[in-house]
Amino acid sequence: MGLRVALGQMEVVPGRPDINTATMLKMIDAARQQQAELVIFPELAVPGYLLGNAWEQIAFLKDCERYGRQIVGASGELAVIFGNVYVDWEQKGHDGRVRKYNALFVAYRGKLLGGDNFPYPCRIKTLQHDCREFDDSRHFYSLQQLALEQGQRVEALQQPVLLKMAEQTIRLACLPGEDSWSDAYDFKAATAIKENGPVDLFVNIASSPFALGKNRKHNRVFARQAREQGTPIIYVNNVGVQNNGKTVYIFDGCSTVYNARGEISAYCQPFAEKLTVVELEPDGNVKDGGAPVVPEDGDIAAIYQALTYGIDRFMQAIGMKKVVIGLSGGIDSAVAACLYTNVLGPENVLLVNMPSKFNSQTTKNLAARLAANLGCLYTVMPIQEAVDYTVEQIGQTPIIDMKDGREMYLPVTPFMTENIQARDRSARILAALAAAFGGGFTCNANKSEITVGYTTLYADLGGALAVLGDLWKEDVYRLGDYLNREVYRKEIIPAACFTLKPSAELNTSQSVDKGWGDPLDYPYHDRLFAAWVERPEPPEETLAAYLDGCLEETLGYTDRVSKLFPNARAWLDDLEYWWRQYRGLGTAKRAQAPPVLAVTGYALGEPEPQLGAWFSQRYERLKTQALAEG
Amino acid sequence: MGLRVALGQMEVVPGRPDINTATMLKMIDAARQQQAELVIFPELAVPGYLLGNAWEQIAFLKDCERYGRQIVGASGELAVIFGNVYVDWEQKGHDGRVRKYNALFVAYRGKLLGGDNFPYPCRIKTLQHDCREFDDSRHFYSLQQLALEQGQRVEALQQPVLLKMAEQTIRLACLPGEDSWSDAYDFKAATAIKENGPVDLFVNIASSPFALGKNRKHNRVFARQAREQGTPIIYVNNVGVQNNGKTVYIFDGCSTVYNARGEISAYCQPFAEKLTVVELEPDGNVKDGGAPVVPEDGDIAAIYQALTYGIDRFMQAIGMKKVVIGLSGGIDSAVAACLYTNVLGPENVLLVNMPSKFNSQTTKNLAARLAANLGCLYTVMPIQEAVDYTVEQIGQTPIIDMKDGREMYLPVTPFMTENIQARDRSARILAALAAAFGGGFTCNANKSEITVGYTTLYADLGGALAVLGDLWKEDVYRLGDYLNREVYRKEIIPAACFTLKPSAELNTSQSVDKGWGDPLDYPYHDRLFAAWVERPEPPEETLAAYLDGCLEETLGYTDRVSKLFPNARAWLDDLEYWWRQYRGLGTAKRAQAPPVLAVTGYALGEPEPQLGAWFSQRYERLKTQALAEG
Repeated sequence: MGLRVALGQMEVVPGRPDINTATMLKMIDAARQQQAELVIFPELAVPGYLLGNAWEQIAFLKDCERYGRQIVGASGELAVIFGNVYVDWEQKGHDGRVRKYNALFVAYRGKLLGGDNFPYPCRIKTLQHDCREFDDSRHFYSLQQLALEQGQRVEALQQPVLLKMAEQTIRLACLPGEDSWSDAYDFKAATAIKENGPVDLFVNIASSPFALGKNRKHNRVFARQAREQGTPIIYVNNVGVQNNGKTVYIFDGCSTVYNARGEISAYCQPFAEKLTVVELEPDGNVKDGGAPVVPEDGDIAAIYQALTYGIDRFMQAIGMKKVVIGLSGGIDSAVAACLYTNVLGPENVLLVNMPSKFNSQTTKNLAARLAANLGCLYTVMPIQEAVDYTVEQIGQTPIIDMKDGREMYLPVTPFMTENIQARDRSARILAALAAAFGGGFTCNANKSEITVGYTTLYADLGGALAVLGDLWKEDVYRLGDYLNREVYRKEIIPAACFTLKPSAELNTSQSVDKGWGDPLDYPYHDRLFAAWVERPEPPEETLAAYLDGCLEETLGYTDRVSKLFPNARAWLDDLEYWWRQYRGLGTAKRAQAPPVLAVTGYALGEPEPQLGAWFSQRYERLKTQALAEG
Repeated sequence: MGLRVALGQMEVVPGRPDINTATMLKMIDAARQQQAELVIFPELAVPGYLLGNAWEQIAFLKDCERYGRQIVGASGELAVIFGNVYVDWEQKGHDGRVRKYNALFVAYRGKLLGGDNFPYPCRIKTLQHDCREFDDSRHFYSLQQLALEQGQRVEALQQPVLLKMAEQTIRLACLPGEDSWSDAYDFKAATAIKENGPVDLFVNIASSPFALGKNRKHNRVFARQAREQGTPIIYVNNVGVQNNGKTVYIFDGCSTVYNARGEISAYCQPFAEKLTVVELEPDGNVKDGGAPVVPEDGDIAAIYQALTYGIDRFMQAIGMKKVVIGLSGGIDSAVAACLYTNVLGPENVLLVNMPSKFNSQTTKNLAARLAANLGCLYTVMPIQEAVDYTVEQIGQTPIIDMKDGREMYLPVTPFMTENIQARDRSARILAALAAAFGGGFTCNANKSEITVGYTTLYADLGGALAVLGDLWKEDVYRLGDYLNREVYRKEIIPAACFTLKPSAELNTSQSVDKGWGDPLDYPYHDRLFAAWVERPEPPEETLAAYLDGCLEETLGYTDRVSKLFPNARAWLDDLEYWWRQYRGLGTAKRAQAPPVLAVTGYALGEPEPQLGAWFSQRYERLKTQALAEG
């Protein structure tokens, strides 16, 4: 087999088969002009993936079918592989609704191939993905369910598609989506296909979002699979953003060819829509090609690239061209300001500092300096007068008991005043200023704050998008450092933003000039919260590690926890306080929080019931033990 | 078979196996004292149902197992049927995680029955429920998947459990959850069980939330099933509230015994935790029992009962005892005030009227009158000064272009001022007042407004719970009327609240005294939006009905649409405007909206991607046709 293949790494717009089909037809033309023999598009390239209830709309499914036929019609001598939904209108899904498959189509000379050795003229996904943002089983019928219904072994339905071209016949082994992730499931699709006879090429079409370090693992799994099967694999993934309402996923592309020895022979750059044509030799090597440069995706540079691409595409999707950003002088808003400015341009970013009497000259100066460094629009809108007015109105307006006419007054405590300040900034100023500026305002809260609800609703937890919502505080610092060091190559974010104690500056006990600030100890609390969000066993596993003396190692915390807490009681009090915040108010606040831009496999924003904090029987036993040991 | 059965209609607290087990042990004691031979608890009675990622926590699953063993241990001569998760620690689910089943257990004399003719000592659910709030396939392995794995027919695994008691052996046909809803699925579990031999009794344990008219359908389906099989069915459902973060579901109980002729022989009242002991004759009749009174659940009385129970249990769950309610003089806030006052008592409800210069004396008086009628706490906090201050601060603070030092000013339009007013009321006053009062504030938005985003974020769309969020405007009126007529039996809500044109009173064009108001025409827009939310085919089906001349009938609108719109163009403009609002800004706003208390099968609050509005090819064709026809 020698084959000129075009990798159609396209931007898929969810729910817009019209736009996606236009993109594909354009790429088909370009591939033909470059003498490609085969062009490959991503999984669900026609409909998109994260569509919620649109999957149940007959009108939408019919349109996807029609657009799919248009693509088949455009194939001609150029073979086209693409992902689309396949609807069997005669059958029902397991829930009684119309039956849908997540399908891979091979079109050639205006016809669909593969119906000769399969019940449908396509291939369908075997391994359903039901973790985090994916809900395959809710929407799609799997190959396993079809096999059960047909009284066949799943393996028997894993037949290659024979692509009979003028010069040669290529035995294509088709792997939609998860079917190539041979590590995660017991069933190995690639092996099953090989059982049915020799194949020339594995084709994996995917719709896989960026997650820190994902491609490192991806390359390991796919390389081994290619090597073990002695067969090249072509992986084509889409770019763009798709969301489930509360979390925005950034699709990274990174389409790749693995040769039969498991080496990477072609690689498409991340976060860019691009058709790449390669001349493949039978072993999957690229003719006259060298070893491609594969960027590392586990570091802060990858996060920077993902976030700026994600902001750009999400703003485009919701039609927002300008933003207002509250600039406190701290690191979070500084990094958010840099990211948005780099994407939208300084003329489309309005930075606003909103001091109260608790804000230090230090942070006010830092905000002004950063605004000057970025060359954005800038203003200062103090909040003290409005806050005083509100405190007085709340505290000094009589409340009447309508049963007996008695009057009373409600006290406004310093804690309430803190939240009044926070809401005054966002709901009073930022929202109005954004409307006047013709855009939206941003949510600068980071993942540490959102996890435990160390934020105020209708305040710092408001905004169109939480761009730092999947970054722990330490990641925000690293990203700020990366911006100065690698992106600007000068001190755009003032050095003091990195050294100031993080502080909301909402009362005198949070004075940054005195080195006081938030009740969170970074990076310890970052690491603790990460253990809760990323692993399913909090907090009893945390406590077990503490008792085993390996807490620091388990959390990945490089200092000693005993420096922060004098004894087991103090450590447990802190643990339980934040755990209750995470599961209690934190969850309630997240239900009303803006969407988070995801850069890890553990982004916040999934549906989360308000259940409150719960401690297992084992936790209670371990706690008794820890307190006894002191 | 003659059997003394206790129906354990308990409140299930999601994620709290400790509390649920304590409830069950208490009911087991009570059942024993009343000489019951069998007690039946609901589906997933130990863990609860809507748990999100808690289903993946090993510590949680282990606790559920331990508590399950405690219940088995408590059985003795009293047989106990209950729902719990069954974990097969040796096997993986389809996604590689630990395998879990939604299971029904029969315990007797300290042992689990049913392992003699089934792979596990329990029965597991066959029909996975993946619509709306349920995500069975994401969490549970089904009986169909198990049958596939074991190379057996599903029917062969549908064996009755033999309950061998001192005096008799009862062949129990076990139907967990959906397995009794024989209408919705092709597979009929009851028929399959009967194929394996005679049975004496069907037991259906359920965890089924209230939805308007659900039980009417439930009774029809179950009665027919009992009649067709000639076998009595006992249905036991839980009460309480469970939520998925954005929607709060109210479980109605209504546990029922259907005799072998399909008649209802015993019925437990809705929304009440209660153990009911009945002496069943072999045909499912209750010894010495008359025909029980079965309340209608498709009317406004049922909604009132569901909402007040739901408020009570949700407030209890989140630990909120007091609320502040913004009282505008309109019907929505009036009804919300009545509901909360009836649940929490007038001393725990603080009503606040927040007039601007646009609010009429009419509505201000109505608010004061209602507060007096309810005997709540009441106050008036005007917003005009604060709004003027904000408008001035936004419009008159110079914005500096930091590139060249130029100054500019941003104009504040009347539309922006409307939203400034709305946010001033909620984020400035209500949130602060709620904190000072020691409670939360309510969201009074109705379903019509939330559907199309005719609300302001961080304003009237803020609050702890949207108690009217699943009621169309016309339902709110009906509920208000019901409160005066049936609950209070006097005019607590002033009559003018029902006759005023609905208005936000945010500008002079919304003067209620001039009969002006919101841009929504009720009930037409109610009916239009209901078609979009309740059926999956908007808006092309709406347009097709319009062209067919049956729009009114399709929507259930009793007047003529032509009275509202002079021609097809005007009708289409309105249709497309609201459709874009529904799919565009409406969706973005709902992502940050409070949880909605569900009373229908179509409550808002499901995860919804922000996709924007989309029109199908068929819609565009029909539109051309409609415009041509005028």
